[in-house]
Amino acid sequence: VSNARLIAVDWGTTALRSYVVSATGEIIARHESGEGILAVAKGDFAAVLSRTVAQLPAIDQSLPIMMSGMIGSRQGWLEAAYVRCPAGLLDLAVRLSEVQSPLAHDVFLVPGLDTRGADGIPDVMRGEETQILGALAALDLDDGLFVLPGTHSKWATVSGGRITGFATYMTGEVFAVLRDHTILGRLMAAGGEADAEFERGVNASLAAGAPGQLLHQIFSARTLCLTGDLTESGVEPYLSGLLIGSEIRAAARANDQPVYIMAGSTLAALYAKAAGIVGLTTVAVDGDSIVRAHLALANAANI
Amino acid sequence: VSNARLIAVDWGTTALRSYVVSATGEIIARHESGEGILAVAKGDFAAVLSRTVAQLPAIDQSLPIMMSGMIGSRQGWLEAAYVRCPAGLLDLAVRLSEVQSPLAHDVFLVPGLDTRGADGIPDVMRGEETQILGALAALDLDDGLFVLPGTHSKWATVSGGRITGFATYMTGEVFAVLRDHTILGRLMAAGGEADAEFERGVNASLAAGAPGQLLHQIFSARTLCLTGDLTESGVEPYLSGLLIGSEIRAAARANDQPVYIMAGSTLAALYAKAAGIVGLTTVAVDGDSIVRAHLALANAANI
Repeated sequence: VSNARLIAVDWGTTALRSYVVSATGEIIARHESGEGILAVAKGDFAAVLSRTVAQLPAIDQSLPIMMSGMIGSRQGWLEAAYVRCPAGLLDLAVRLSEVQSPLAHDVFLVPGLDTRGADGIPDVMRGEETQILGALAALDLDDGLFVLPGTHSKWATVSGGRITGFATYMTGEVFAVLRDHTILGRLMAAGGEADAEFERGVNASLAAGAPGQLLHQIFSARTLCLTGDLTESGVEPYLSGLLIGSEIRAAARANDQPVYIMAGSTLAALYAKAAGIVGLTTVAVDGDSIVRAHLALANAANI
Repeated sequence: VSNARLIAVDWGTTALRSYVVSATGEIIARHESGEGILAVAKGDFAAVLSRTVAQLPAIDQSLPIMMSGMIGSRQGWLEAAYVRCPAGLLDLAVRLSEVQSPLAHDVFLVPGLDTRGADGIPDVMRGEETQILGALAALDLDDGLFVLPGTHSKWATVSGGRITGFATYMTGEVFAVLRDHTILGRLMAAGGEADAEFERGVNASLAAGAPGQLLHQIFSARTLCLTGDLTESGVEPYLSGLLIGSEIRAAARANDQPVYIMAGSTLAALYAKAAGIVGLTTVAVDGDSIVRAHLALANAANI
């Protein structure tokens, strides 16, 4: 592929996405698999990356590979740095890690970010910083509130082109374990009015209380079902709405600015719907914009 | 056993406790096993009860058996009634269910309670109402705030000898699934300064926020460990303190009255410690006082 400039790799816990990117940020080819870092046997990341690159169209072996995500964590290939917020593209570009590998390509890791909230709680991200910086480039934005929903939802504030702070919400993982491993899941059945019950859960999340109140509110998914106020098929979307609504309400300050949502289409739609009920406007951002950050980092670092 | 009046059975999800009780409420004999209703194969509750009774000292087959707890739920032997709050001893005594069984003894089920909170959320209990009414009899109390910590913690207010309302917090079950099935558990190691880290978790729970803030706060068990601010052996007690503190802060109104804690000694000590940090005084109640309610119900119903 003649105009290829870079191989951009977004390697997370459960997915591996690779892109061949042109010098102007166009995606020339892509490859996606479920080989997240948890699925890599014996930590043989080099073998997986080599196989992945081999499945991309014929590319020059001099193309550098720029990787972001949990591949740079303690559980990944090599622990890359954490850069302290506020941090922008240039702050990351000077802290890239080069990975020694048997591949012919030069392989680099994007550092993660760390921060400390007003509550004194430290927080970290790996991968989302690259997604956000890519979105800023693609949307030509310098400021905004971003949410990256998922297993561990990240809410990040951007000002002057730099990520000034962020907080993680374990919403997706908590939802999954409540569904799969608690008494709430035992009542669940498929089908039914998912939309209406999701909205009902979001509305339930608007009830006031201290943080611990959530431990009570989630139980309503069971009791509403026991009392016949909620069908068994409504339990799952109700619980989903309750948790996502709770997250949004805790994370987003009410203001006139939109919340930028970066997620797959299903999850992005749920967050947009819940944010609307909470009273926020949202903009969905295309996840492919991440490659704009990989490219900008390579350019800034003269790679 | 000549002065035996009743067999009192507290049959919950994970435990089965049986007592031979005298007419004055003394416990003459007891038997305890892990045969909670979840451990009973094919719903053969009659066989388990029969075996259990056979392990009590020789007793007259005319002794009635009074059972409370999840044995009266839809997943139990027979679904007993729910009585609406406010409810006291006499309200329950008129709604006992008799179970048809192959045993020579007459077998009765204590009904559960239901209520609807100020937030409109319905709530239910089965078994705790009997524990609370037993405690009122044993302590000669008519009013108070009770907590029954556990998988599903119950907070109940008592006024004029009747339970006026209550709320369930899924604290114990949420703690267990976070420990056993999420990324938080993967960092945990045994040993270490459990007391100090538990207290630290309780203090972290005092941070303000909407209910959804808990989804962020629990992540601090991971990030504090990653940043070296918390040892791996501190993760579990820290998370326990964070959740228990959050529950207490959401459930208890600050006032001068003590909170009555009904739990096994380990859990009771944790709740007492956390309540102290939150600024509440506590009284630990002996769990055996439950038989006072079984006895009073039998007397009131002329059984």
